[in-house]
Amino acid sequence: MSRIVMKFGGTSVANLERIRHVAGLVADEVAAGHEVAVVVSAMSGETNRLVALVDDLDADSDQGGTIDDEYDSVVASGEQVTSGLLAIALRRRGLKARSWLGWQIPLMTDEAHSKARITGIDSPDMDSSLKNGVVGVCAGFQGVTNKNRIATLGRGGSDTSAVALAVALKADRCDIYTDVDGIYTTDPRIVPAAKRLKTISFEEMLELASLGAKVLQTRSVELAMNNNLPIRVLTSMAKDGAPNPGTLVCNEVKKMEERVVSGVAYSRDEAQITLLQLEDKPGMVAKICQAMANANVIVDMIVQGISRSDNAANLTFTVGKRDLDTALAALEAAKKDIGFEKMKSDDNVAKVSIVGIGMRSHTGVAQTMFEALAERSINVEVIATSEIKISVLIDSEYTELAVRALHSAFELEHA
Amino acid sequence: MSRIVMKFGGTSVANLERIRHVAGLVADEVAAGHEVAVVVSAMSGETNRLVALVDDLDADSDQGGTIDDEYDSVVASGEQVTSGLLAIALRRRGLKARSWLGWQIPLMTDEAHSKARITGIDSPDMDSSLKNGVVGVCAGFQGVTNKNRIATLGRGGSDTSAVALAVALKADRCDIYTDVDGIYTTDPRIVPAAKRLKTISFEEMLELASLGAKVLQTRSVELAMNNNLPIRVLTSMAKDGAPNPGTLVCNEVKKMEERVVSGVAYSRDEAQITLLQLEDKPGMVAKICQAMANANVIVDMIVQGISRSDNAANLTFTVGKRDLDTALAALEAAKKDIGFEKMKSDDNVAKVSIVGIGMRSHTGVAQTMFEALAERSINVEVIATSEIKISVLIDSEYTELAVRALHSAFELEHA
Repeated sequence: MSRIVMKFGGTSVANLERIRHVAGLVADEVAAGHEVAVVVSAMSGETNRLVALVDDLDADSDQGGTIDDEYDSVVASGEQVTSGLLAIALRRRGLKARSWLGWQIPLMTDEAHSKARITGIDSPDMDSSLKNGVVGVCAGFQGVTNKNRIATLGRGGSDTSAVALAVALKADRCDIYTDVDGIYTTDPRIVPAAKRLKTISFEEMLELASLGAKVLQTRSVELAMNNNLPIRVLTSMAKDGAPNPGTLVCNEVKKMEERVVSGVAYSRDEAQITLLQLEDKPGMVAKICQAMANANVIVDMIVQGISRSDNAANLTFTVGKRDLDTALAALEAAKKDIGFEKMKSDDNVAKVSIVGIGMRSHTGVAQTMFEALAERSINVEVIATSEIKISVLIDSEYTELAVRALHSAFELEHA
Repeated sequence: MSRIVMKFGGTSVANLERIRHVAGLVADEVAAGHEVAVVVSAMSGETNRLVALVDDLDADSDQGGTIDDEYDSVVASGEQVTSGLLAIALRRRGLKARSWLGWQIPLMTDEAHSKARITGIDSPDMDSSLKNGVVGVCAGFQGVTNKNRIATLGRGGSDTSAVALAVALKADRCDIYTDVDGIYTTDPRIVPAAKRLKTISFEEMLELASLGAKVLQTRSVELAMNNNLPIRVLTSMAKDGAPNPGTLVCNEVKKMEERVVSGVAYSRDEAQITLLQLEDKPGMVAKICQAMANANVIVDMIVQGISRSDNAANLTFTVGKRDLDTALAALEAAKKDIGFEKMKSDDNVAKVSIVGIGMRSHTGVAQTMFEALAERSINVEVIATSEIKISVLIDSEYTELAVRALHSAFELEHA
């Protein structure tokens, strides 16, 4: 007998029909002899409805400072409803079940309301309840501060709740049910021949998540990796009784390394900034990074170059597309301090990446990548690499072409 | 400076526009120098929506026993949303405010989920928060059990929350905002000349509430009376700046006693049962009451008589209309034990009552009442009296006529 945590997102519990279906999936695991804790999101659309109420009132004036604590209390009600409803659906199938709200578990967080981080989970009550065969239905996305206020983990925080809870409950596995049936070699909307991976390593999943694959939240993968907790990604939309193996995200095993590249990711949320005619002062890159950090802008890829015409240094880097205006304003303000003449920017760019732990032991991966891009005359503007990934910044017009070229070059359709 | 509790029902917080209006009413009291705690219901319609979700799942099967604990967790989310939203609206007016959920106060209850009773409120945190000028916006209708589960007080429980909280916080007054502007001498839909009372005693209000006046919950009036906490009933629908004195419910004062009758109440939720040809056994009435209590049916008026024709005893009593079938079944089952031959019932009856603490010191009140009814040929079937009220059971067809006759006989249009 093992203990598992099952997590269901908003579309999986969108209405009573879906909630009944989820109760059936839980019942199957209980029938298989497992102790089961479930983490649920709000019914889809509900969080947006609640946020709209808050935003409307918030727009009344600027008086009175932050309202994030009250935002959390209002919005957390969405998961409260779902957890109670699923517990009822389970009891009406004859199972023992009860709901657990963040403050009842308790799932402790810091006081960064609306984007809180989990500081600890210690729930002997829930542990013994699970041992007694009672399914624990937890409201995801929420916790409680040491001031006894409700805090939410921010959008998508339910994945993190589920993994953190699985770690705290010493679960054997965390199953994340979603609207796709696993992790694919790339976006099937771009490459119809994309294949579902049976397994993928934590490291690869982490790269894919931060490079634009939206199936799992980065924080939840980090947490699972640090605690060596296997995650299974599978669909909650499968027909009753249909096979639903999903993708297992776990520590790397020998076999995985034979695969050179596991997936191709892309992101269009990038913008490129180039500073021209930089003075060659020591600590210049540090100053730029400092200016961006002060403006809460995360710098991603950086490349330094020399202009042939005037022999002056240039620097190109990327930021999130929605941070572009903030970044440009901060650079303009620090122009003298950093020491550059002009800057230009472009938000018509995309980042395309290949990821695979096999890269560590295989040579020629970069060569295959750049040849495939060159054959399609795709110009690479910036390159960034890690031990297990290579990312390139290209004109966004070529995104789909580049993804297809790379998927084919690494023969991922046979993965 | 005094401390007051303000309570707003579902129609008073029906939408964001109404919530903003309520924030204005609260701001007025803060501006007047008061420490203010507010108790809110769910936005009107919201509780029904949540109950419908629960009922739908509940109907799936009979497996799994009670779901009242989960019902409470789901339904309590309605007040959670309103309390957060009002706290935000208050901050955006520049006031200090925060929400308090039942478990945060904490408002402790017993474990009778969905109809819990308050067992205690001890909130030094809220007390000091109010002293610091922070408006406390409490989710009404909900508390927490000593097993750390959410419990609701049952429909209408927000009045009781508000009064209990006012008592615990040693408030000077509890203002109940509703959709009428006070307590009237009778239902203005029946008697357009009905007058709003400036004051009414707890005892009178208690009788009126239990006799069918629906403005205040009986439990909340009892609690206020036992703790000598004045309640003011007033409307939340008044235009900004319009006078809104309402009705003050408080301990009787000399002047009140000069008023013989304060109000006329009526209820059509009655049914009459008559047991015929009863054996004259000792403890027979006790047996009937026992049979009703076992069936969870509350017996109201009782009258015993002798039939002229066969010289056998009859017994007539009233029960709530929706309990009639249950009562009849229970009586049929206990027929032998109680010892009666036949029974008949009638749910086409109404109870009309006059209430007034002046009755204690004035004679001739009953005479005036029965003369007024006799003049209109209204037949009285059962009579019940207390120190400060007289109730009669009549054919429901005559309800409005009787109410008007009594209102006029006691000159309440000049109250």
